[in-house]
Amino acid sequence: MFKLLKQSKKSQARLGVLKTAHGNIDTPFFMPIATKAAVKSVTTQEVKNLGAQIILSNTYHNYLRPGLEVFKKIGGLHNFMDTNLPLLTDSGGYQVFSLSDLRKIKGDDIEFKSHLDGSQHILNPKKVIDIQVAMGSDIMMVLDECVALPTTRAKALKAVERTTRWAQISWDYKNKLNQKSAKINKQLIFGIIQGADFKDLRLKSVKEITALPFHGFAIGGLAVGESNKVMYQVLDYTSPALPENKPRYLMGLGYPENIIEAVKRGMDMFDCVIPTREARHGKLFIRTKQTLKGKFYKTINIINSKFKTDQASINNTNLKNYSKAYLHHLFKTEEILGMRLATLHNLDFYLQLMRDIRGAIKKGEL
Amino acid sequence: MFKLLKQSKKSQARLGVLKTAHGNIDTPFFMPIATKAAVKSVTTQEVKNLGAQIILSNTYHNYLRPGLEVFKKIGGLHNFMDTNLPLLTDSGGYQVFSLSDLRKIKGDDIEFKSHLDGSQHILNPKKVIDIQVAMGSDIMMVLDECVALPTTRAKALKAVERTTRWAQISWDYKNKLNQKSAKINKQLIFGIIQGADFKDLRLKSVKEITALPFHGFAIGGLAVGESNKVMYQVLDYTSPALPENKPRYLMGLGYPENIIEAVKRGMDMFDCVIPTREARHGKLFIRTKQTLKGKFYKTINIINSKFKTDQASINNTNLKNYSKAYLHHLFKTEEILGMRLATLHNLDFYLQLMRDIRGAIKKGEL
Repeated sequence: MFKLLKQSKKSQARLGVLKTAHGNIDTPFFMPIATKAAVKSVTTQEVKNLGAQIILSNTYHNYLRPGLEVFKKIGGLHNFMDTNLPLLTDSGGYQVFSLSDLRKIKGDDIEFKSHLDGSQHILNPKKVIDIQVAMGSDIMMVLDECVALPTTRAKALKAVERTTRWAQISWDYKNKLNQKSAKINKQLIFGIIQGADFKDLRLKSVKEITALPFHGFAIGGLAVGESNKVMYQVLDYTSPALPENKPRYLMGLGYPENIIEAVKRGMDMFDCVIPTREARHGKLFIRTKQTLKGKFYKTINIINSKFKTDQASINNTNLKNYSKAYLHHLFKTEEILGMRLATLHNLDFYLQLMRDIRGAIKKGEL
Repeated sequence: MFKLLKQSKKSQARLGVLKTAHGNIDTPFFMPIATKAAVKSVTTQEVKNLGAQIILSNTYHNYLRPGLEVFKKIGGLHNFMDTNLPLLTDSGGYQVFSLSDLRKIKGDDIEFKSHLDGSQHILNPKKVIDIQVAMGSDIMMVLDECVALPTTRAKALKAVERTTRWAQISWDYKNKLNQKSAKINKQLIFGIIQGADFKDLRLKSVKEITALPFHGFAIGGLAVGESNKVMYQVLDYTSPALPENKPRYLMGLGYPENIIEAVKRGMDMFDCVIPTREARHGKLFIRTKQTLKGKFYKTINIINSKFKTDQASINNTNLKNYSKAYLHHLFKTEEILGMRLATLHNLDFYLQLMRDIRGAIKKGEL
């Protein structure tokens, strides 16, 4: 399922291939985000054309809208979004804790009110699997409890304990479903490590979660308000504790330099709204150097008036026929096409970054 | 420049070819609208792929933003928008009368304040030509005075007189510029007929405007609030008075049945925001019959909950991989991609309609 192809001698960076029901994915990779079953402003085909190997979509949002009945009728998220790329869906845990109102945990049930209409809902480890089965995700994530940083040891411990209990429930339930359906059996399932920035709790979580033979392991509870320093420290002791022969997913990260630092610490999978969200605000990532060392990119704000008559192409890859002046104009006039072109640009930047990272590991340079 | 290929025996409908600097266009045709140098949410390449032969853009909007300096530096609208399709630009007259504040006409100058920032500007017949020269339009329109219906005879007469004077100034100025530049010489220029719904004023305007050898003639001042009955009456006496060997452009029209009725009355060119604007509100045009007689289409509101689980494709041409359920979801979740898919659908409908109209004239059925 996961094949480790190369281990860097300069760092913990590694090359591998992850096999899913919808094809193989070269690691390390970045997942563009289709929060509500759409990568904002672009088609899945456009994302694929840029070299994306997989797309991430959000269970919480998809559960509320369009809802389970639609996925059951339409036959899953691939068909709904029109893509044959592998899809990873998160567990909804992060959103239920950050977006919904009035949540209460009763036993293993999270009771919450929809942030959209206040309607009452329950998520629990089994239901989260059921939703991801209905969506037909290639990689499903278990329900976990993610706490924002900084936090207390007591809260972090409680989250670790709950996350472990839910992981066991999820694993058992998924295995029961596997017996019933060859299709479900092909859906991979990943466990999630919690523990905030407490080393002993992270290692406790690693020990408990990796005791279950999940197809991969994610580090959750990072990129939740902490400094880069704290994040790298947590990675420094958590990542090496994870099994070498399974893919490692750092959830919700990040800026290009964060991704490189995490790759160096042995992480294989990334997702982040940064390229797409910042694109919609006119912020473009621009490579300034071929190398990945030091300051190899800059960001520009295309809305800045200095671009008003800038004839230079937006980039020399996918948008070479459009000038910066045109993109500036589209943002000034609030034309939707501007968000779309900027999104295509930033996704191209991130996907090229990942190709360069894989190339650098291959050449023994990272 | 314009070649009449066929004249229907059943109506005044006609087939022709209009030659422009960026290629030939089969008449009758429909122009998708790129108000602010962008067809909202879609690329010019996508519009071309749907079979569009020409795009319309608005002089008033482009003059205010990005402004003349940008076009002069970038080298025109084709380069700016990235298209090799022919472009028609209107004169800005309609917008200056409908959008701007505090306009005053002094001699041949229209003084107005920008609807964007209140800045002071002047448009006049020569300046409108200069702007369209800078944009590099394949077809430019003269400045005219368009009055909304209903109106008084006195106002309509004044508008006709001013429109004629401005047409003469425009024609003379364009010819002067032609001597200076082979490129400008290739830009076609159309006159515009006014006269509201007064038969004698329309015929007076036709007589005066067609006395100048413009490359084509537009009927302006329709689709400005009048009933279909009044519009068809005006066409009934205005269209046959226009020269047979020049293209006839009915500005700002309309719904499919309006376009068919206007084609039957001898009109060749159309533009309208209806397909693109209604798309952005989730209203889709759906053909129900192959024929163009009677009720051959319907409109649906994709936001209606009855589409929530509708597995049927949006259409069987350009969006066959997307279900109505998915488009419904995109509108419910306010995903930009929804507007984009709906726009592609409605433009496909309109461009197919025009192909069918041309086919029907060819077969002698219209």
